[in-house]
Amino acid sequence: MRLHVGLLHYPVYNKNYQTIASAITTFDLHDCSRLAKTYGVKTFYVITPLEDQQELARRVLRHWTVGYGAGYNWTRKEALELMAVSPSLEACVEEITTREAQRPLLIVTDASKKKAPGLTYAQARNMVRADQVILLLFGTAWGLVDEVFEKADYLLDPVEGYTNYNHLSVRSAAAIILDRLVGRDGLES
Amino acid sequence: MRLHVGLLHYPVYNKNYQTIASAITTFDLHDCSRLAKTYGVKTFYVITPLEDQQELARRVLRHWTVGYGAGYNWTRKEALELMAVSPSLEACVEEITTREAQRPLLIVTDASKKKAPGLTYAQARNMVRADQVILLLFGTAWGLVDEVFEKADYLLDPVEGYTNYNHLSVRSAAAIILDRLVGRDGLES
Repeated sequence: MRLHVGLLHYPVYNKNYQTIASAITTFDLHDCSRLAKTYGVKTFYVITPLEDQQELARRVLRHWTVGYGAGYNWTRKEALELMAVSPSLEACVEEITTREAQRPLLIVTDASKKKAPGLTYAQARNMVRADQVILLLFGTAWGLVDEVFEKADYLLDPVEGYTNYNHLSVRSAAAIILDRLVGRDGLES
Repeated sequence: MRLHVGLLHYPVYNKNYQTIASAITTFDLHDCSRLAKTYGVKTFYVITPLEDQQELARRVLRHWTVGYGAGYNWTRKEALELMAVSPSLEACVEEITTREAQRPLLIVTDASKKKAPGLTYAQARNMVRADQVILLLFGTAWGLVDEVFEKADYLLDPVEGYTNYNHLSVRSAAAIILDRLVGRDGLES
């Protein structure tokens, strides 16, 4: 697999649909790194242009990979080693392009937006399993701004549960989507 | 569906396999409530015998259901209204028994334990869809202690990702398992 995951903190919407740079939630860094390690994701990119926020992410990374946390919990070290910090979506795409010698397909996610025809989970799973270079992008706060959707190659269908409620945390959405795209249970059925 | 979810804070193991009461992580309350609302779960029980921890959970509940948070974000209100606090697994089972006029099947989860024959996701999905009364139980910290497994009717197969790494957060595990048991994508395939 050549699947990379990005968590975008700018540009995203706030509650009033203004474009903002959101603050990092450290729980996201842990949960998404552990998901990345579980599902064979190559890199989990934390994307923010704010230097103090980049430094916060790097402090978490250092604590668990070379600091006290590395000895305290090696499973956390293994997961956070997959995390990287990037200043922008463009820089992230460039870095993947250099590493993979191929530009990644940009697959974006949204809790409610649907495009006809959207990318189904079966289609996305096939792309992942065919070793295509992919950047799967999640938005923080109230979601990715419209201009990010315009840059995307595909918009993945929203997660549908059992009700019409579609307000999961980005941590939960990332867990469900990675399991649908990569998990063994999904492949067997 | 008559599916209830419990998050157990006692008795669970710590890192050294001693039995402890773990502290509540407020992110768990939010993420699991939102999952419960998304997947049609009837109640999300936060189970802890510690009175200060019960009060913490109730403070979070009040803030988002009748306090400032209720006006600030109605989607969070809708989710947290499904949350209840229970002092023990036994009390939780009793409460469900009273409400449903039937004792729930206790299905427990673990990141690594496997029983032969364990409960597969397909089997568990069929039980949920057949409207059986179920308490699906997740452990915090280093997981449920052995005596909880002895009380269980079923042990659900562990989540398997793409690697052998099995150190997801309980939030991520709950997201993946609920999607496998109830999510529309799982049902279609």
